[in-house]
Amino acid sequence: MNIHDLDTPALLIDLDVMERNLSRVADYTKAHGLNLRPHIKTHKIPALARKQIDLGAIGITCAKVGEAEVMLEAEPPEILVAYPVFGESKLNRLMNVARKTRLLVAVDDLATAHPLSAAAVAARVEVGVLAEFDAGLHRVGVESERLPALLEGLRALPNLKVRGVACYPGHIKSLDPAGEASLEELSALISRIANGHEIVSGGSTPALFESHKVKGLTEIRPGTYIFNDRNTVAAGACARQDCAVTIMATVVSTARAGQMIIDGGSKTFSSDRMSTGDNGTWGELQEAPLARFHKMNEEHGYIALDNGEQFSIGDRVRIVPNHVCVAMNLHETVYGVRGDRVEQSWAVKARGKLQ
Amino acid sequence: MNIHDLDTPALLIDLDVMERNLSRVADYTKAHGLNLRPHIKTHKIPALARKQIDLGAIGITCAKVGEAEVMLEAEPPEILVAYPVFGESKLNRLMNVARKTRLLVAVDDLATAHPLSAAAVAARVEVGVLAEFDAGLHRVGVESERLPALLEGLRALPNLKVRGVACYPGHIKSLDPAGEASLEELSALISRIANGHEIVSGGSTPALFESHKVKGLTEIRPGTYIFNDRNTVAAGACARQDCAVTIMATVVSTARAGQMIIDGGSKTFSSDRMSTGDNGTWGELQEAPLARFHKMNEEHGYIALDNGEQFSIGDRVRIVPNHVCVAMNLHETVYGVRGDRVEQSWAVKARGKLQ
Repeated sequence: MNIHDLDTPALLIDLDVMERNLSRVADYTKAHGLNLRPHIKTHKIPALARKQIDLGAIGITCAKVGEAEVMLEAEPPEILVAYPVFGESKLNRLMNVARKTRLLVAVDDLATAHPLSAAAVAARVEVGVLAEFDAGLHRVGVESERLPALLEGLRALPNLKVRGVACYPGHIKSLDPAGEASLEELSALISRIANGHEIVSGGSTPALFESHKVKGLTEIRPGTYIFNDRNTVAAGACARQDCAVTIMATVVSTARAGQMIIDGGSKTFSSDRMSTGDNGTWGELQEAPLARFHKMNEEHGYIALDNGEQFSIGDRVRIVPNHVCVAMNLHETVYGVRGDRVEQSWAVKARGKLQ
Repeated sequence: MNIHDLDTPALLIDLDVMERNLSRVADYTKAHGLNLRPHIKTHKIPALARKQIDLGAIGITCAKVGEAEVMLEAEPPEILVAYPVFGESKLNRLMNVARKTRLLVAVDDLATAHPLSAAAVAARVEVGVLAEFDAGLHRVGVESERLPALLEGLRALPNLKVRGVACYPGHIKSLDPAGEASLEELSALISRIANGHEIVSGGSTPALFESHKVKGLTEIRPGTYIFNDRNTVAAGACARQDCAVTIMATVVSTARAGQMIIDGGSKTFSSDRMSTGDNGTWGELQEAPLARFHKMNEEHGYIALDNGEQFSIGDRVRIVPNHVCVAMNLHETVYGVRGDRVEQSWAVKARGKLQ
């Protein structure tokens, strides 16, 4: 099948680029003796998680129990749920996951650790835990001063096995001088904490290739690197040609001069602005990088053609999204392509798994 | 089942409020001799489309062919696809819809009307068309001066039956003096155009209750009115207590003073800001209207508690979203509630039907 036979809007994954991205990070982590535990929130597809494992990932990372349930299909050796799990029903579901694969859970409060321990005792399983500390993002995680007390509390709880510590340095976005400073602070913080832990887990895509500079870190959990997006380019962590995902849309109206309307809007691309701040665009057109994709409604995109670009009704364009993770979440099916050939399609099985 | 037995995040529909919203608009349109052709993009649930029809709607409006396919389950007497349909595969699917119910399509260019006519001839069906004109939003629709030529061209095409004209006055947001002026211009434009047409279709939720002032209008196509949201309140078209949808979330971290983290972010609420401009919040907490829901990641919401509000891990909050249509699109299942009782659940069957 040719990509022109697909109905639009359609999310296309350039398989050559994706495979290059996967290999580059697998090679980087191997070269530096780091473990790789990729976050599946970006692709949400068990078959792609399997590819990551086959390339050497030691396991995968999920945000929600619902994602972990779907990802069992990939037969991962270990699943880290990197999010506080709360409530009897979710804990029961989590214990079912623990019966099927090795489970790790990130915990930042004994208030969530106690019911987790009780659920593990009732289910007669052992659950690995990572004590989560705040690396500066101020989202979850205890302040590092309170980490020893958290660790001590966790060690006292039955059926929980403390395997180490975790943080999410999601605020370290770039390699500019300010970013380097944050990286140094992070490195100092982690090397103080790391001592003696089997697992010291961190890492996100924007600062991925700086991970080997963080002393004491044993593993990274990047997600976006499999596809990359305009945010990754803006963070300096990849080049434009490393973006594997484009969203193909059709021009459906040219009724107004200097503007065209495409058949995708906020339900196709998401309303996520650039994480570096709003630069007024919702994506970059491969065919016309200077055209401004400046406005969206739910099903319509407005593209200003300030430089005399010519498009007609029925023309197709391919657009690199700002934030690929949330865009993937909006598509039921996505397509793996090489050149103009559609090589395969995947259902986005973990999309919408909010609970 | 009690709402506290649901896993979070969960989208709850207050059925008393929804039923009041549905009746109010059904009564308003009847009182003013207007037809109601609600847009299903807001709820995306065939059972709710059926409720609208049972209350007197003459049919429903869809954006995409995929939505129309799903909505056949509601057995609507007529479906309007209010969006240019392009491409052989989509036209074939559209003709299958036309075999099952009366079909209307909005068209703003002969370039899309010709293949539509050819598909209707091949399928041996008659397709009703509405000529779409631009009411000032500058999205789709021909300028009103070009409408007579479009109508003439459409009348010449076999198996298409011109039944009238349509516009989308989505830029008329409020009842403030500026809004009133736009409404007067729209009314003047429509009364010039309306003459002799069976159908003169317009109307969106924000200016809904002004529709009877627009001379010549025969029908309205509001969507959001079934639930309403913070945008509808800001537009002055409903009160806060007319918002039927809240998203229930759980507090999962209070590690940082003056802040709490909930288990929902941009994949639960969407990143849509207020249509009146960014006021820095992603939703309003029922339990603490002054708390600032000021930041989101994909699965986390950050809420600043500037006024000494006290919450603990495990507490649940209910949040009115900025834009309910895109929030609904993110949830697989939603729950109809009265008070704390869960009366029913619905799969959001038309979610993600992008093509």
